[in-house]
Amino acid sequence: MSQQNLEALDVGAIREEYPILQREFSGEQLVYLDNAATTQTPDPVVDAMSDYYREYNANVHRGIHHLSQEASIAYEEAHDRVAEFIGASGGREEIVFTKNTTEAENLVAYSWGLNELGPGDEIVLTEMEHHASLVTWQQIGKRTGAEVKYIRIDEDGRLDMDHASEIITDDTAMVSAVHVSNTLGTVNPVSDLVDIAHDHDALAFIDGAQAVPNRPVDVAAIDADFYAFSGHKMAGPTGIGALYGKKSILEDMQPYLYGGGMIRKVTFEDSTWDDLPWKFEPGTPQIAEAVGLVAAIDYLEEIGMERIEAHEEELARYAYEQLDAEPGIEIYGPEPGPERGGLVGFNLESVHAHDLASIMNDHAVAIRAGDHCTQPLHDKLGVAASARASFYIYNTKAEIDKLVAAIDDARQLFA
Amino acid sequence: MSQQNLEALDVGAIREEYPILQREFSGEQLVYLDNAATTQTPDPVVDAMSDYYREYNANVHRGIHHLSQEASIAYEEAHDRVAEFIGASGGREEIVFTKNTTEAENLVAYSWGLNELGPGDEIVLTEMEHHASLVTWQQIGKRTGAEVKYIRIDEDGRLDMDHASEIITDDTAMVSAVHVSNTLGTVNPVSDLVDIAHDHDALAFIDGAQAVPNRPVDVAAIDADFYAFSGHKMAGPTGIGALYGKKSILEDMQPYLYGGGMIRKVTFEDSTWDDLPWKFEPGTPQIAEAVGLVAAIDYLEEIGMERIEAHEEELARYAYEQLDAEPGIEIYGPEPGPERGGLVGFNLESVHAHDLASIMNDHAVAIRAGDHCTQPLHDKLGVAASARASFYIYNTKAEIDKLVAAIDDARQLFA
Repeated sequence: MSQQNLEALDVGAIREEYPILQREFSGEQLVYLDNAATTQTPDPVVDAMSDYYREYNANVHRGIHHLSQEASIAYEEAHDRVAEFIGASGGREEIVFTKNTTEAENLVAYSWGLNELGPGDEIVLTEMEHHASLVTWQQIGKRTGAEVKYIRIDEDGRLDMDHASEIITDDTAMVSAVHVSNTLGTVNPVSDLVDIAHDHDALAFIDGAQAVPNRPVDVAAIDADFYAFSGHKMAGPTGIGALYGKKSILEDMQPYLYGGGMIRKVTFEDSTWDDLPWKFEPGTPQIAEAVGLVAAIDYLEEIGMERIEAHEEELARYAYEQLDAEPGIEIYGPEPGPERGGLVGFNLESVHAHDLASIMNDHAVAIRAGDHCTQPLHDKLGVAASARASFYIYNTKAEIDKLVAAIDDARQLFA
Repeated sequence: MSQQNLEALDVGAIREEYPILQREFSGEQLVYLDNAATTQTPDPVVDAMSDYYREYNANVHRGIHHLSQEASIAYEEAHDRVAEFIGASGGREEIVFTKNTTEAENLVAYSWGLNELGPGDEIVLTEMEHHASLVTWQQIGKRTGAEVKYIRIDEDGRLDMDHASEIITDDTAMVSAVHVSNTLGTVNPVSDLVDIAHDHDALAFIDGAQAVPNRPVDVAAIDADFYAFSGHKMAGPTGIGALYGKKSILEDMQPYLYGGGMIRKVTFEDSTWDDLPWKFEPGTPQIAEAVGLVAAIDYLEEIGMERIEAHEEELARYAYEQLDAEPGIEIYGPEPGPERGGLVGFNLESVHAHDLASIMNDHAVAIRAGDHCTQPLHDKLGVAASARASFYIYNTKAEIDKLVAAIDDARQLFA
């Protein structure tokens, strides 16, 4: 991918919209490198939600009065905006708001899986799946009798696509895979994976929680049947995620949650369902959160997703090279380049990741340490936990230097 | 209930914290009487959420760094605060955050109902149930083979408790009822209902969406096994609701949504679950929303729930009497008093409720018209829709006078 024409981000100007980045702990300014867990939220997004509450807060869908009309338009059009952002040609009918990516996985597992899966069916995941899909499909498999298989990863943390071709068969009903691994940083060849699934008439669910915030995503080009992501990892609010689904598939699916706002006609005996996407959104939805998500999309597109991707690739390359030059550091996942997203997972020999993160924290460097909701992957890597530095639009190389300096400090402490 | 010692609310001071109430439409100031759909959100609640995003936004549960510690404490303690607010003696372990009341109903229906119900079991609802419980239990009944029965209402819109005693039997597995009807305004004798359920070893779920915002609620006194409500109807944010469940029952229930943050140990083959309440909260939760909900509880308790109840009872009585004195108005539900909450549902003869609401809107009076997510109840009442004026802490008798004047205008228009 040629990125030489991409103008670098004006990180100084960007940082001005994040008051939280000015915080200090023990006299040192916060270095926030936990973006794969959640990104920070810029003023325009916070302000958009405050404006909603102060100017046009109302319940949606059914209100005749002015406020409800304004809130309804904002809420409904938020679906259109998300559809446009990820290239969903079917518009709002293909976008269901959920509370997070996890709920999107569960929606499909309950609505499609519980009704369609049975003994003899197979679900194919990857060894690098997040618990959001791994546990969900594992448990739906147990409930329905479907068997779960895992695509192996190679020693560089990439999917073994030969193994994928081997275990995805005509018995496969669903293939669910992360677009970008939250632990290894691997960018998976999801389009190829979807093609293999479709060759066997299986559906494909792509978990884009670590992709949509960081790079241009086009669900039509990927040809995924389902694609999901969360607001809070893309400069947006907590409490909202989005499920993309192909219209023809969503239309055939039964609702998963029941209640008001998703029905057409209810009697004491039975019910019929509303049109897409409302069929999947019962109860008062996340209205302020949808407003915030639109503000986040506007904000990110104003910066430019290609430029965001280039910025993160540059930071990830720099971090990888700096850490790789340090003694005793093991880095997980592929080398810098198009196969790695904007995060670096690692361990420092003989120092537990939690201790490492704790020492980082003494220097106001915020990284994550733990199993990152990929326990089986960590078992395979032979470690209980790993440290992870993950980058976003407001991070700098100087911050990575602070990370490396803090690691040096840890090494000396534990020497 | 003696309320003579309750000091009246300082509505003028309260209104200053709601900029939205200053809005004007066609030169007339907004009269917001759609509070049963959603209440407005005061500055302290909006500010609490903005402060979260600007000062301590981070993912929760597993982070070692300062921000994650601050966010985790706020998020976890929000459960304690909700428990305290509704009298849940078990503290945070008895409070699960959901996206709304509807999801709370579905959580129990899926987690408990799908595993426990079968042919021969009966689910008892009321004829005044909201679709949130009616459709949910109806559909879970169809899936499991359990039969759904409905407690009749009398001509004043009260539960027929003799009928309740008749149809709640040893075959009954679950009784689910609204605490306060969103359509009739009826305050149900939920404690009596719970007692009848328990006499037959059935569980009882009380939908408190129209009660918790408006009156003191003590789940221990009611002895409900489950109790649910939403943030956005109690001066809080969208995107969050709460399910109370007795600890011993929640402990025995299987999870309903799967993912990160709700597990103890995951392998490729199987998973075990975290402690309460996290077992039921997979994925990144509604952190900012939990902060907002706590701010709303602080705000409401500062005013005082008894005073809020008295204020609403006074407004409901005034509205009832004014509307009752008008020609051609049919009011649904009980007379003013302890059996009526802070709303009045009605129709004006020969004018469709939607047309009525539309004319109200021309006068900047915001009411709701429609089926209020109680279609079967409306079928029973013999109308397709009704109009509803619902009150909150910032409403005044002068606003009710404007409502009545607008109704007079509608009557003349349609005469």
